[in-house]
Amino acid sequence: MGELKGACILGQSGGPTAVINATAAGVIQEALKQDCITAVYGAAHGIQGILNEKFYDMSKEDPYELELLKTTPSSLLGSVRYKLKDPDEDDTEYKKLLEIFKKYNIRYFFYNGGNDSMDTCNKISKYMQKVGYECRVMGVPKTIDNDLWGTDHCPGYGSAAKYIATSTMEIYLDVRAYDTKMITVLEIMGRNAGWLTAASALAGVQGYGPDLIYLPEIPFDIDKFIDEVMSVYEKKKNIIVAVSEGVRDKDGKYIFEYGPALHKHTDAFGHVQLGGLAATLAGILKEKTGAKVRGIEFSLLQRCAAHIASLTDVNEAYLAGQAAVQYAVQGITDKMIAFERAEGPEYKCNIKLVNLTDVANVEKKVPREWINKDGNGVTEEFIKYAMPLIQGESRPPFENGLPRFARLKKVLATK
Amino acid sequence: MGELKGACILGQSGGPTAVINATAAGVIQEALKQDCITAVYGAAHGIQGILNEKFYDMSKEDPYELELLKTTPSSLLGSVRYKLKDPDEDDTEYKKLLEIFKKYNIRYFFYNGGNDSMDTCNKISKYMQKVGYECRVMGVPKTIDNDLWGTDHCPGYGSAAKYIATSTMEIYLDVRAYDTKMITVLEIMGRNAGWLTAASALAGVQGYGPDLIYLPEIPFDIDKFIDEVMSVYEKKKNIIVAVSEGVRDKDGKYIFEYGPALHKHTDAFGHVQLGGLAATLAGILKEKTGAKVRGIEFSLLQRCAAHIASLTDVNEAYLAGQAAVQYAVQGITDKMIAFERAEGPEYKCNIKLVNLTDVANVEKKVPREWINKDGNGVTEEFIKYAMPLIQGESRPPFENGLPRFARLKKVLATK
Repeated sequence: MGELKGACILGQSGGPTAVINATAAGVIQEALKQDCITAVYGAAHGIQGILNEKFYDMSKEDPYELELLKTTPSSLLGSVRYKLKDPDEDDTEYKKLLEIFKKYNIRYFFYNGGNDSMDTCNKISKYMQKVGYECRVMGVPKTIDNDLWGTDHCPGYGSAAKYIATSTMEIYLDVRAYDTKMITVLEIMGRNAGWLTAASALAGVQGYGPDLIYLPEIPFDIDKFIDEVMSVYEKKKNIIVAVSEGVRDKDGKYIFEYGPALHKHTDAFGHVQLGGLAATLAGILKEKTGAKVRGIEFSLLQRCAAHIASLTDVNEAYLAGQAAVQYAVQGITDKMIAFERAEGPEYKCNIKLVNLTDVANVEKKVPREWINKDGNGVTEEFIKYAMPLIQGESRPPFENGLPRFARLKKVLATK
Repeated sequence: MGELKGACILGQSGGPTAVINATAAGVIQEALKQDCITAVYGAAHGIQGILNEKFYDMSKEDPYELELLKTTPSSLLGSVRYKLKDPDEDDTEYKKLLEIFKKYNIRYFFYNGGNDSMDTCNKISKYMQKVGYECRVMGVPKTIDNDLWGTDHCPGYGSAAKYIATSTMEIYLDVRAYDTKMITVLEIMGRNAGWLTAASALAGVQGYGPDLIYLPEIPFDIDKFIDEVMSVYEKKKNIIVAVSEGVRDKDGKYIFEYGPALHKHTDAFGHVQLGGLAATLAGILKEKTGAKVRGIEFSLLQRCAAHIASLTDVNEAYLAGQAAVQYAVQGITDKMIAFERAEGPEYKCNIKLVNLTDVANVEKKVPREWINKDGNGVTEEFIKYAMPLIQGESRPPFENGLPRFARLKKVLATK
């Protein structure tokens, strides 16, 4: 594992978060420092940009703008949901990738994403090994869903959790302004894992939490739900119920399909795109109970709110990107950067490496023992786990009253 | 107009904002300093609390918690939507109020609210004058809708505008992560006046603005809307459309009534409570165009987001409350505190007084000349007007990663 001289390329993949660009800053700033890295490319829309030979020369960017990436949400290089075929069945795209890697002498490949993206990263890593092209491949975790296997948590989660907890607190005060009865249903993202919805419980640490919380880990029974809501509502008269967009009944049918499903789509991985659940449940509760019910969907706001990101999350996202480059330069390949929580009373997170093979396509759900017995709330263990992840406040610099986000020149690399 | 010795009472009324409690801090802290004010009461749920003889002794509160009111959203004393009868038809409630005012020797009445609340304030003022009970009555403006007559702008608007502009910028980046076509419809509050929806245009100052903006001031033509959206969509492929919840067709029918109206309610003033417009329009656009369309409703988040309030707004809200007390002590009554923008290149706002009679029930809409010719955007004049109002960032102190909002003891006043 001697020195490997060549270019590096970074791809952003999967759904946006508040800190995916902070990871990009970590990768790019670190790579620009490394002597053995001869060029630093940023792929336009992940693997798709590489296949289309469309990537940017990051050395052409203003260093101040690269610094601003730390507080700029979404995927500024452009993201993608693109599933590579099994190379044993069809290796056309892999051959194309290899050709481009050779053409630009790309020897370092960094891919920042979630489960599906680690699958892509893993396939490329294994293919390059198979054909004997020396290239160090490193996955960097990213997902607000926090469902990646092998890591204590994922960059992106802490910021989304902080936004959700803060907004839940603010809504708690808002819906209590009037001396009237009301049920508020919060719809929170999370297709199969309830990490984000569980984060609403953090508002309860300050005394402004939801009364009931429903995660997709537990089959959702609409009658039980109505009974539980009514039981709390009768006692408290003004209640908040947090529900994951991904809740399904015992037969696996999404609850939002019970009502008008206005945002139903299917993405390239065959995932149904969710939405409209809050409205559906609000309609059902209104019909069944006659209560005043308001549905609130946090929607995209929860994943792109850089203005109230977790500083811990931003710093860790940056470090993950930086570490990926440092390890790769040292000779590591075929791994994903992961976090390991140190023992002891103080929160401390160390970086470890996990095998891409082990991570690809595996989903980590909220453990059953962190969900209460009735399946309508979370336990103290979850709170202890999540609180350190939302510590510290990060926001972009504000200019003229508005956030100043990074502006990239996006100079296309040529050969 | 000599010194008037007696108690004062503050009522919060109408919809929550991020800064209504900042005004309360201004009133309470200033009133506690005044020798002629013998007690400082805060009404539980505005006029309803006074009628029910339920109000709090604010001198019992911890000064630190009163200070925290400046960064605590919603209406911490409790708000109300309650319409007093015409005293010439039924003066029962006025007699009750007079009795309570006499019992507690209330000589200063401060009412913080919007159009409807100024109607309440005006009726009480005129009644007290008619029956010869000396009481200084001051209205203090408050509404995210910014539709109060006689003032340059209203406390609450700047913070909601800042939240809307910031969130629009973040959504702008989020929806561009993928290299795919999409129409995003933002639903923004505002029943009859388009000030809040217009604020989405402020995101455009940084280059992240919506492509089309529809205000309730202009009759909404669904076919024209579809044509305009499609025309921009064909050129740009990824577009954002901001629409006020209150848009109506030429016959006055709400557009959200074209589709499923899940949140339809009527409040005490006979206003229809709106919501679900984004979903309705998204559904219509999807059906007509086949495009991928996402509807996002800012919902309550836009009016309670103290975590990204405008510092200018917070400061002005505080000053308005403070000024109300100072003027009343000096002998002024039957007025509302208003803002007047000073001439000159620098933004400076002076306090002036307007007659309650002139303010009650009058709505100030966005001037036609601040809306573009096609009725689907705003002009530079609007931007110039609104930008100073979102300057500076205010947020609550954060403790353990979460906002620390004011906690009041709410000790009931007794006599």
